[in-house]
Amino acid sequence: MAILLLISDMDPEEWDEAITRLAQQRRVRVWPYLEDPAEIEYAIVWKPPRGALQGFPNLRAIFSMGAGVDHLVGDPDLPDVPIVRFVADDLTEQMSEYVLHHVLLHHRRHLEYAEQQARKVWNPLPQPTAREVRVGVMGCGVLGSAAAAKLGAIGFQTRGWSRTRKDIPGVTTYAGSDEFLTFLGGTDILVCLLPLTPQTRGLLGGKLIAAMAPDGALPGRVIINAGRGGLQNEAEILAALEDGTLWAASLDVFETEPLPESSPLWRHPRVVVTPHNAAVSRPEPLFDYVLDQIQRFERGEGLDNVVDVQRGY
Amino acid sequence: MAILLLISDMDPEEWDEAITRLAQQRRVRVWPYLEDPAEIEYAIVWKPPRGALQGFPNLRAIFSMGAGVDHLVGDPDLPDVPIVRFVADDLTEQMSEYVLHHVLLHHRRHLEYAEQQARKVWNPLPQPTAREVRVGVMGCGVLGSAAAAKLGAIGFQTRGWSRTRKDIPGVTTYAGSDEFLTFLGGTDILVCLLPLTPQTRGLLGGKLIAAMAPDGALPGRVIINAGRGGLQNEAEILAALEDGTLWAASLDVFETEPLPESSPLWRHPRVVVTPHNAAVSRPEPLFDYVLDQIQRFERGEGLDNVVDVQRGY
Repeated sequence: MAILLLISDMDPEEWDEAITRLAQQRRVRVWPYLEDPAEIEYAIVWKPPRGALQGFPNLRAIFSMGAGVDHLVGDPDLPDVPIVRFVADDLTEQMSEYVLHHVLLHHRRHLEYAEQQARKVWNPLPQPTAREVRVGVMGCGVLGSAAAAKLGAIGFQTRGWSRTRKDIPGVTTYAGSDEFLTFLGGTDILVCLLPLTPQTRGLLGGKLIAAMAPDGALPGRVIINAGRGGLQNEAEILAALEDGTLWAASLDVFETEPLPESSPLWRHPRVVVTPHNAAVSRPEPLFDYVLDQIQRFERGEGLDNVVDVQRGY
Repeated sequence: MAILLLISDMDPEEWDEAITRLAQQRRVRVWPYLEDPAEIEYAIVWKPPRGALQGFPNLRAIFSMGAGVDHLVGDPDLPDVPIVRFVADDLTEQMSEYVLHHVLLHHRRHLEYAEQQARKVWNPLPQPTAREVRVGVMGCGVLGSAAAAKLGAIGFQTRGWSRTRKDIPGVTTYAGSDEFLTFLGGTDILVCLLPLTPQTRGLLGGKLIAAMAPDGALPGRVIINAGRGGLQNEAEILAALEDGTLWAASLDVFETEPLPESSPLWRHPRVVVTPHNAAVSRPEPLFDYVLDQIQRFERGEGLDNVVDVQRGY
């Protein structure tokens, strides 16, 4: 019996060593090189082509290479086996560090200072402390909760919003559509870590930005999207930057990736573009996680972090 | 009896309101406008001209507007009264936030990403997590200890060095000249928050940089100076950047301030220049601190944070 790897955009150099180690513990097949589909019991996948996961009669579980599963759950031909999202300290820490960096970058007005440096201008700007700035984290799953807790620990007034209420130390939490506008209305810097579902698609746009706090201690509203590109409406974000509703943005994900050269986001003076690098699944923690889950599953202990396919995350 | 304000570079607009409030509690004189030197009991000072603090027969204490007192203690004509440094949550938090921002900026390779963005290049770079990166804080007074504790709390391997040993939660501490090279040898990102004294002047130069860890998880060694410009040797820092000993730097302070237009630091692609804005004394917390200390002093409780003039901090 074997594990199938079906991972698009896999950098062979980075993965070879880890695959060799994985193969010492379990038989491994790398898609599309497989002799006997019946030997496949588990699949580790990232953005599989539609229908590619059909035809494995003994498949018992699918592991997503990423924390998000929107690349999977839209496939109507998905086999009826548990789908497990990737959760690991390595991924969670990378995401928290990205979020902290970009919140602090805007909090400390780095884009303005960088522009002043380019012009050799020595000009200190008014600077609130973190306790005067309200950061809202939208989406409080494993990644969002960890990021919110760290933001709270370093002093920001931190609030979190999610579909169902979460309890996060040092963070005021809001839940459901009833409390969404209250959450936004007290947010100066919005961090978006929602899953991509039909309900969240395009949410990060003009209407949402206009509902954020109008009177913060920073020069204006800031958004940070490290969730999925499909959550954002880039035309509306650009319009909000133009009309002043939005002050600045850090975007790690885009409607089309890589971000097309023609996008005005690349050169906008108040937009930070990063190449979907906020939290990158690394082969070693991924394989450790999968092997650990398989061992427990085969001992009859069940799987952790199983996705609700109907809900979409 | 009155308080003297002798503060250079004071922005009147920002200070007027706070001075008005202070004057409701104590008589206030703003140098050089004073009628009767004998009425001055306390002075709040920043970079006073040499000898300007002489001729006040009833002066009881001098309060430095900043955490550093190098602008004062070199004056041989300094009256023989206690000198008190400024310590306040407002200042400590600003400094911690600056340090966290710049450590994360280099940790997350922001300068490379910004350069890639300017060229519309989509290219994720290898990224260690904070637990793989060693940050060393040189100078563990109030500001350094707080910054080190926060760096530790968000996951960096954090170490601190100071003249006398300090105990900081989550931070490995080193002390004295005997342990200095051990401290440096395990440091990837060095944060300098030392006081400026004859012993520390020019310390942040080629020899010190070469003693930092050669084999970190980042592309190279990084220094962050938010202490005093006199701590650094800018010619040696530039040479270390050129020969690859140093990968990148964030400098908030300079040998000459404002940084002269002719300095190559302004346009160096791996140097972040900020205009001495890491932690700015704001009038309200400063006056609250001074009034609180005066009240306790006059009740016979003594002064906090008194400087050792011989030691220089």
